[in-house]
Amino acid sequence: MRGYTQDKEEYLKRLRRVEGQVRGLARMVENDEYCIDVLTQVSAVTRGLQAVSLGLLDEHLKHCVAEAVSEGGEDADAKIQEASEAIARLVRS
Amino acid sequence: MRGYTQDKEEYLKRLRRVEGQVRGLARMVENDEYCIDVLTQVSAVTRGLQAVSLGLLDEHLKHCVAEAVSEGGEDADAKIQEASEAIARLVRS
Amino acid sequence: MRGYTQDKEEYLKRLRRVEGQVRGLARMVENDEYCIDVLTQVSAVTRGLQAVSLGLLDEHLKHCVAEAVSEGGEDADAKIQEASEAIARLVRS
Amino acid sequence: MRGYTQDKEEYLKRLRRVEGQVRGLARMVENDEYCIDVLTQVSAVTRGLQAVSLGLLDEHLKHCVAEAVSEGGEDADAKIQEASEAIARLVRS
Repeated sequence: MRGYTQDKEEYLKRLRRVEGQVRGLARMVENDEYCIDVLTQVSAVTRGLQAVSLGLLDEHLKHCVAEAVSEGGEDADAKIQEASEAIARLVRS
Repeated sequence: MRGYTQDKEEYLKRLRRVEGQVRGLARMVENDEYCIDVLTQVSAVTRGLQAVSLGLLDEHLKHCVAEAVSEGGEDADAKIQEASEAIARLVRS
Repeated sequence: MRGYTQDKEEYLKRLRRVEGQVRGLARMVENDEYCIDVLTQVSAVTRGLQAVSLGLLDEHLKHCVAEAVSEGGEDADAKIQEASEAIARLVRS
Repeated sequence: MRGYTQDKEEYLKRLRRVEGQVRGLARMVENDEYCIDVLTQVSAVTRGLQAVSLGLLDEHLKHCVAEAVSEGGEDADAKIQEASEAIARLVRS
């Protein structure tokens, strides 16, 4: 069980939509559509991915990190450190 | 013809890779893989999309915008304004 | 006491450096320095601010959120929700 | 003369505001204000800097890059390449 498992179907639905949007980008490029229109669509796909990341992170904090902290000990510090590093990657990507 | 048309195959190849990575994300979620590992993969997909955007934008400036500027007139200003707005969307997504 | 209080001097030092960098940007603009050089410096200031944010967030998770989670109850959920919203603002800024 | 020179006062005003906001951040840290409130203010400062960057970039494209392109030759390609690299730094910071 993961923090996100209870919402798995929702994440799978979003990821299928992102996958479809990426295929749509390829069609736009295939059809020589105007660069700015392709760029606008890429920004939309990026925002879709961002929403998936922020959702997963929220559930990770609420379940995996919270459980480790409740149990205390070194695992708790490691879990928070790991979450902070994932947040840094998100902020910098 | 678009600014990116000459490199179309390269962009299609990258987009197919991104599409495969998004499918890979869905498999990770399907298999209840660890949240942080899924998040790390999402950051990789985001960077892949970013590279596609920056490439398309560079080619747009070098071809579409440069041609409009060389011809001069209102279309040139409009093209640059449009490019600036696309850049703002990229920076803010 | 806050999560960051123990490292307050370090954060104050970094913020003074950012403040000095912003003053430096104004001097560059005052002296009509080349746009790209000013832009390069703005990116450096942004990264400095980002490091401050990520540090503060890490300490907030390690202290304020961890304490609330250890004590349990509604405050814990509220603290995590609040942290997730701050992370979302960071990712989207 | 730079692309932004005609709007220099506006940029100096914005940079002074950002400088004041950074000083305000230091006061918040000095006074042990709540981490989330400090983080919220950092996001506001980052957006202020982003607006400065996007404005400078827009003016750079409209003046410096457009002039180089109108004159044609190698300098035009170099100017666009330089702008693309500055955009990449912005997107990635």
